[in-house]
Amino acid sequence: MRSPIEQYLRDLHRELSGLTEGLPFQGIPAMASADPDDFAICLATVDGYVYEVGDSQTEFTIQSISKPFTYGLALEDHGLDAVDRKIDVEPSGDAFNEISLAHDTGRPANPMINAGAIAATSLIKGSGGRDGFARILDVYSKFAGRPLSVSEHVFASESATGFRNRALADLLRSFGIIEDDPDGPVENYFRQCSVQVTARDLALMGATLANGGQQPVTGQQVVGLETVQRMLSVMLTCGMYDDAGAWTSAVGLPAKSGVGGGLMAVLPGQLGISVYSPPLDQHGSSVRGIAAVRRLAAEMGLHFVQAARIGRSAIREHYPITDSPSGVRRNQEATDVLTEHGHRAQLVELHGDLLFAGAESASRHVSSMPDEVEILLLDVRKVDEVNDVALRLMDELCDGFEESGRRVAVIDSPGRISEVLCTDGTPLFSGSTEAIEWAEELLLRKHGCSSLVPETVALPDFVALAPLTDEQIADLDAAMERRVYEDGDLIRRSGQKFGGIYFITSGHVAASTAHGGHHVRHATLGPGMTFGEIALGGGAPVRVRAEGQVNLLVLTADAIEKIERDNTALALALWKAVATDAYTRVEQNLQEVAVRVRI
Amino acid sequence: MRSPIEQYLRDLHRELSGLTEGLPFQGIPAMASADPDDFAICLATVDGYVYEVGDSQTEFTIQSISKPFTYGLALEDHGLDAVDRKIDVEPSGDAFNEISLAHDTGRPANPMINAGAIAATSLIKGSGGRDGFARILDVYSKFAGRPLSVSEHVFASESATGFRNRALADLLRSFGIIEDDPDGPVENYFRQCSVQVTARDLALMGATLANGGQQPVTGQQVVGLETVQRMLSVMLTCGMYDDAGAWTSAVGLPAKSGVGGGLMAVLPGQLGISVYSPPLDQHGSSVRGIAAVRRLAAEMGLHFVQAARIGRSAIREHYPITDSPSGVRRNQEATDVLTEHGHRAQLVELHGDLLFAGAESASRHVSSMPDEVEILLLDVRKVDEVNDVALRLMDELCDGFEESGRRVAVIDSPGRISEVLCTDGTPLFSGSTEAIEWAEELLLRKHGCSSLVPETVALPDFVALAPLTDEQIADLDAAMERRVYEDGDLIRRSGQKFGGIYFITSGHVAASTAHGGHHVRHATLGPGMTFGEIALGGGAPVRVRAEGQVNLLVLTADAIEKIERDNTALALALWKAVATDAYTRVEQNLQEVAVRVRI
Repeated sequence: MRSPIEQYLRDLHRELSGLTEGLPFQGIPAMASADPDDFAICLATVDGYVYEVGDSQTEFTIQSISKPFTYGLALEDHGLDAVDRKIDVEPSGDAFNEISLAHDTGRPANPMINAGAIAATSLIKGSGGRDGFARILDVYSKFAGRPLSVSEHVFASESATGFRNRALADLLRSFGIIEDDPDGPVENYFRQCSVQVTARDLALMGATLANGGQQPVTGQQVVGLETVQRMLSVMLTCGMYDDAGAWTSAVGLPAKSGVGGGLMAVLPGQLGISVYSPPLDQHGSSVRGIAAVRRLAAEMGLHFVQAARIGRSAIREHYPITDSPSGVRRNQEATDVLTEHGHRAQLVELHGDLLFAGAESASRHVSSMPDEVEILLLDVRKVDEVNDVALRLMDELCDGFEESGRRVAVIDSPGRISEVLCTDGTPLFSGSTEAIEWAEELLLRKHGCSSLVPETVALPDFVALAPLTDEQIADLDAAMERRVYEDGDLIRRSGQKFGGIYFITSGHVAASTAHGGHHVRHATLGPGMTFGEIALGGGAPVRVRAEGQVNLLVLTADAIEKIERDNTALALALWKAVATDAYTRVEQNLQEVAVRVRI
Repeated sequence: MRSPIEQYLRDLHRELSGLTEGLPFQGIPAMASADPDDFAICLATVDGYVYEVGDSQTEFTIQSISKPFTYGLALEDHGLDAVDRKIDVEPSGDAFNEISLAHDTGRPANPMINAGAIAATSLIKGSGGRDGFARILDVYSKFAGRPLSVSEHVFASESATGFRNRALADLLRSFGIIEDDPDGPVENYFRQCSVQVTARDLALMGATLANGGQQPVTGQQVVGLETVQRMLSVMLTCGMYDDAGAWTSAVGLPAKSGVGGGLMAVLPGQLGISVYSPPLDQHGSSVRGIAAVRRLAAEMGLHFVQAARIGRSAIREHYPITDSPSGVRRNQEATDVLTEHGHRAQLVELHGDLLFAGAESASRHVSSMPDEVEILLLDVRKVDEVNDVALRLMDELCDGFEESGRRVAVIDSPGRISEVLCTDGTPLFSGSTEAIEWAEELLLRKHGCSSLVPETVALPDFVALAPLTDEQIADLDAAMERRVYEDGDLIRRSGQKFGGIYFITSGHVAASTAHGGHHVRHATLGPGMTFGEIALGGGAPVRVRAEGQVNLLVLTADAIEKIERDNTALALALWKAVATDAYTRVEQNLQEVAVRVRI
């Protein structure tokens, strides 16, 4: 089916085709003959998808849209300070071909007027066997994600008629802004203006800027974020010539137009937008280009004020671990300790983007926790993105919490934020159940006595067998096999037929389920727990593995059959106990799920 | 514990206290004596929290920071077009006290220079028994969230020495920009500059702008979003006088300074920032104010390019319903139909903010689904925020999907996005299990035969009893009670002792668990399913209610006891069947949870 955005762009394209004011650029013969009906609108997303409507594959010359890109290369080559000494960043309020040099230093007002752009071009020197212009063409091509070329026809025409730009170059030379022969830079400037692009190219060049300098399709980091910040700032304040203020008010997007009929706008973090339509307004910008971007910004809410990230709390949930216990079955004394002290361990689940505002709300929340909270479980699995600032704040937050002898653990999937956050030995868990079990054991050791975290459980102490008499348990014990598994041993896997019931007397096992090629661990079982009651079959494949050495008592299928034959009363008591135990688990699971899916 | 952000602000405050350049404003005697050591930094979040360091409660006069607020009131009073005819929005590149009137019309270049500000003040007329100035003071007070007042001392001094501003007012009158006597507006302008604020007030005024015009503490909508967009755009391009370009490049935040020593900056959607420190630089802006906001922006990543929302996919998960079946037990034929056709129903889970970029990625994803996908389950429970544009796109997306005879259902919590999205009869579910069950039944009806969605199940067809012989089932049947419940009847609730096993022969029941005062439905059971196997006790309270008329067969606790006594073989078979059935459910639950918690 057709996407509503494609439909919207088609409608916009059709409506604006009725706009027939203006003429293609008449300044040089090679451009005056452009087809006034050519019209394309493109949107490129930061993940590299391009919506294209109209003549999006038609080539035209980039003209002034080249200015921010050459300026960006100059910034990469020389750094901000060196470039700032040559070219200022103040809006001139003048048209693109005004002189606008500071009367004392000759410094051009900004890199978007011709004088500033020629000064920027003069800063690009040859390197690695390539001359300055080859490097310029190379960087444009990297932004577009394909090799671009020069229209020699337009270049010859520009060069033959560009007296005003030659005068500017000579003037810049006279002030020492251009340090060598001005002819080379001004020829390179004519050449860069004659680079041929399509509307699709321009949208992807814009998307590269939106994406912090990384080309969305090739994945190449073309320029750094600091350079992008400067390029977009200058485009916002000086990009649209004498319209800058009205443009910022109505559109609020950094943008650049060229007399070739192109216009490129950028929604930082999200979109590159381009329009191609040769007829120009009195400022030298595409009439349909201006109209299309104005409508897109207003109708799609792209203005920087409207597209602003709303600073909402990064806290998705916050609860004491007693709200979602680990499910490890414990004796009454341990249960009492956790009931009394469970609120001392709190789980805070963060979500969304963790930039300044998210980190701020998280840090405010944690900082205001009462001193009696001794354990913080920070669940960052639902965090989408973090930046350096947020990582630093979160790191300081964890350090501050631990300074007073309290403990922090992080819950995260492998290879994500925790790789940066947990470098100093902070415990890391991949699921909340394991983290909560860890917190419960810390609380039991501190607020109970060490025997509450048992290392070994004897058969009569298994909760599952509580309904049985001592004699019945002794009979079962006599029928059981002793087994020992070492770390990593596979104990059971799905597809095996019923192999009896496994009682863990010491050590731990992990049950995991395969989903899409990787195993998701969904339970850790420890001393006093049982498994294997049914043939593990149907549904996703399940595996049970030993974690460290494990001692088991196994009531095999054969042993159970024998009991059913020889001692019906014991068999009935056993199955009734197993059924009751199973339903206790069903209920626990249902309640955990209810907690987990709560909004 | 102290928040790391508070700590950061304290460190910043201490370091910048060493900056002792500049003098307080010397232009009028009443201000020259301000204490140069007064220094405050505040941050106010859009949820109304204020970080304050230093002299944040000291009052000073607002001066030029009044300009955007009076301009905002003029926009609310007259609309954009009428105000634009009087005051342009182009950066002048001039200092605040330059004349900068268009030579033909006398229109001031922008509302941030004095001429433009006086023109804006002249547009505020009395209304509802209050004069123009009372209305100005009232709107400032609403932005601050407390009643503000005028320093009569500073006002008298401004009025006595303000010859240049009187000249500007007369000039504006000569061009007809001011239409009446210019004395009133210029006096009101002096008064508005003399309004006393604290750094805390300024931060909250900025936070009101960051929050789209709604004061974060009082909750009052002071001005509309369109007005805010214009105010912040003009502050960005013209707010910092002749530094506008450098400010935008380095800081990238709309801001306004005043000669009273105040400075206010805004991070749209997130923060109001204020600094108070009287010593000024040559442009009339607070030296420490500029330094503090520059450092905050750079070190906290607040520049508009860095703080940009990263356009990532709004798709959190996407899977065919066969990956996470409803758990309703079905016969082999129905299972085969769902195995073959289950991929025709797809669940798409969205998350994060759904503005343009989020809606774009969702719409691209759904639009590209193959035609064989007949049912779309759109889970929007994890979506944080939507705007009008996204709602419109999602609505068009759903309509487009349904146009070709396909079906859409939405999964959402009550009172959220679905209230707007599901107005046209689109089915709405509060959980994915119910939605998937609905989709399964649609697929069974379409691709199987109607008998696959049974209305009634006889006892021998209960999966749970499959291991029993016909004779055993007949014996059980004879021991059972028939019960009928009507819609809404409470069948069981937690705390009741074991009441036997309930077999649903027709109708549906809903099990729900209480969490924090409201009941979360976690399962719907239908014909062929059982419940009640254990005493519902421990954990959160559970209720089972009839949904519509329900027919049950109940094997009561007494009946079971009697069987255990009189027919041990049947009792053993029954408990063994119940245990096996229970463990099938344990496994199903574990696998569903594993799917749900997968990242």
